[in-house]
Amino acid sequence: MKMDELASQVKEASLLLAAAGTEQKDKALQLIAASLLSRKEEIISANRADLERSRKENLPAPLLKRLIFDETKIVDVTEGIASLLALEDPVGKTLLSTELDDGLELYKVTCPIGVIGVIFESRPDALVQIATLCLKSGNAVLLKGGAEAKETNAILAEIIIKATTEAGLPAKWAALLATRADVNEMLKMDKQIDLIIPRGSNEFVRYIMDNSNIPVMGHADGICHCYVDKEADLAMAAKIVVDAKTQYVAVCNATETLLVHEKIAAEFLPVIKEALVKKNVELVGCSRTNTLIAVNLATEEDWKSEYLDYKLAIKVVSTLEQAINHINTYGSGHTDSIITGNEVRARRFMDFVDAGNVFWNCSTRFSDGFRYGFGAEVGVSTGKLHARGPVGLEGLLIYKYKLLGNGHVVEDYANRSKTFKHRNLYKKY
Amino acid sequence: MKMDELASQVKEASLLLAAAGTEQKDKALQLIAASLLSRKEEIISANRADLERSRKENLPAPLLKRLIFDETKIVDVTEGIASLLALEDPVGKTLLSTELDDGLELYKVTCPIGVIGVIFESRPDALVQIATLCLKSGNAVLLKGGAEAKETNAILAEIIIKATTEAGLPAKWAALLATRADVNEMLKMDKQIDLIIPRGSNEFVRYIMDNSNIPVMGHADGICHCYVDKEADLAMAAKIVVDAKTQYVAVCNATETLLVHEKIAAEFLPVIKEALVKKNVELVGCSRTNTLIAVNLATEEDWKSEYLDYKLAIKVVSTLEQAINHINTYGSGHTDSIITGNEVRARRFMDFVDAGNVFWNCSTRFSDGFRYGFGAEVGVSTGKLHARGPVGLEGLLIYKYKLLGNGHVVEDYANRSKTFKHRNLYKKY
Repeated sequence: MKMDELASQVKEASLLLAAAGTEQKDKALQLIAASLLSRKEEIISANRADLERSRKENLPAPLLKRLIFDETKIVDVTEGIASLLALEDPVGKTLLSTELDDGLELYKVTCPIGVIGVIFESRPDALVQIATLCLKSGNAVLLKGGAEAKETNAILAEIIIKATTEAGLPAKWAALLATRADVNEMLKMDKQIDLIIPRGSNEFVRYIMDNSNIPVMGHADGICHCYVDKEADLAMAAKIVVDAKTQYVAVCNATETLLVHEKIAAEFLPVIKEALVKKNVELVGCSRTNTLIAVNLATEEDWKSEYLDYKLAIKVVSTLEQAINHINTYGSGHTDSIITGNEVRARRFMDFVDAGNVFWNCSTRFSDGFRYGFGAEVGVSTGKLHARGPVGLEGLLIYKYKLLGNGHVVEDYANRSKTFKHRNLYKKY
Repeated sequence: MKMDELASQVKEASLLLAAAGTEQKDKALQLIAASLLSRKEEIISANRADLERSRKENLPAPLLKRLIFDETKIVDVTEGIASLLALEDPVGKTLLSTELDDGLELYKVTCPIGVIGVIFESRPDALVQIATLCLKSGNAVLLKGGAEAKETNAILAEIIIKATTEAGLPAKWAALLATRADVNEMLKMDKQIDLIIPRGSNEFVRYIMDNSNIPVMGHADGICHCYVDKEADLAMAAKIVVDAKTQYVAVCNATETLLVHEKIAAEFLPVIKEALVKKNVELVGCSRTNTLIAVNLATEEDWKSEYLDYKLAIKVVSTLEQAINHINTYGSGHTDSIITGNEVRARRFMDFVDAGNVFWNCSTRFSDGFRYGFGAEVGVSTGKLHARGPVGLEGLLIYKYKLLGNGHVVEDYANRSKTFKHRNLYKKY
């Protein structure tokens, strides 16, 4: 089938899915979980084939690791489905109800966005996670996984589509795309696809963002900062910076640059150097840093780098404003934290730093949907429209205005024979 | 000054404006209104120069009409400012507050988007309206008006910037761009500009949408439908269709296509034809329409046309589903109305029609921010992310997550020495 035909069928199915009830969607989620467990042997054997082929093709070790979809992963994704089932249906919620005039009632009601295009590398768990998030929120989904996971993705998609069809949902609400050429086709389908969610490396996400007219939700760089203020508790600061840098270096909310106020730099820098060197962190720093601790000099490129590794850039700043300015210049709007005992300065930092997550006295590693208590996470967005920061199910929703009248026409209001009343109805649609 | 330098200065000012308090912003709005009134002679004389030059340059009459900015218009925009002043400050509202663990508090707080690029044709009132909406919502703004209104726009921008500077806001929170080349420059500034709002013709909006990586809020086509169901009150249907088509033909929420159920077509079509012909509406229709009333045959192109004129396309459909399908195929997701006495069919229509505004027994002309009671309107969006339908001030806002801790690190939760509590705080930031 041609890609645009398939996309049109998915779009058609999206309208049916959007109107599906909570019970039917929950039934479908239960059937998916049950089927993943009962067919685990098939899944694991498909994954084994992917792993063997990819090993022969010399897929790098970190990607091979992410490709593994074993029994533990199957249990993980079914637990994810259980937590999705526990969440309220986000569709059909009344956000606003106004009586515009006698008998003319306006309701703003949540609804799915429509068709989501998901493009992901390696991890087959992303397929299950995103597909079930889309299902819960009533969105149809076009899935494109990496070629290295093709066998695993094929059986996972088949299981999901079969289970949801058994629950009475339209079969075309989800579809798996097979070839790399499909990605570029997909990026052009702004008539059928309403939103693209890319999951993968920075370069991958940036490529998607630069090559489509379709809105993209996600993040490329995560250049996060810790700023240790002159009024910081230095022991607390060291603990936070070590966590923010080393707790898990390969993730977007790990800190990449440390900013230190000049007043405490001489005291703090040797302490943090010792703590980080113990964790095998390589340090680079500005010339002022270099006068206080022995480090290689940082270049302009360092302030713009997301190392995703055991490496940290350090800069000494003269003022809070300089710290804020550095972050707003080089940051990626992801997560930035101030460590200070002064509330006024903390609030100033949180007001002026232009990022989705602005923290006070805690590690940048906290910016995450599960830690925030969202139950399910679509991803983290560094965009400034629609959804920002860790995005839960609500990032897959929009709303419709529904207006219920009884023959009302605008001419009556234009000629002033009637006037609007705009009374809050406090009523559900 | 170079365009990107200017844009960077505006971006810098946007951070100061984002942190400005309600009183300061309201003071600035009051000063703008006062200054517009006290300097009305200057404004009117600048506008007279624009009108004279444009007349000589043979600007079409409708555009000349929109260019007029006289005393009435000045009073209108100051009334708009008064209604903005009456609205709550939308910035700094707590949308969510969760205690993640003891002493670790998460707040989701509304904030401005940042820098808005506004591009508009003719109407100088759009400049005042958008600039003041941006001010109220704490957004900086780059304004680009049409060359025909250059004198008027220059003095309006000067008045606005002077008044807001007097209120202590940074002078660069707003800037007026002068040349046509600036528009194309602006469309490339995705580092400095967060959102573009184009106000003008369909072609103009589409050009903007097709030529920028920056998100665009607005609408190109407004292809709105009325569907008269087999269970409609036909007198009500006629009244609604006449209003939806003729109350004001040049606007985006005017109806362009009428769908009629076959069961009532023979009775309804002659009635509606008579009513519309009286209003000088030209009718085209499908072949089934043509067997019931004498009309020219509609082509495929008609279903895709936004006439913005005294012209209506009519199609007879066999089922409610066919009507829904036609709308979802040819509509623009703007506003569509069903006229029926059957609630189940009405709700089905409103569930399945994929549009920002879905109406029952009322005219499509109601989809408008003022009629909806929003007090101020940014525009109407046919996009499916961020804001949809008539967009009030909230369309210019996003949020930040602010996390307040006391030395909290992720490692404690990773090694399970601590667990998240996720208690709702019901507390304002």
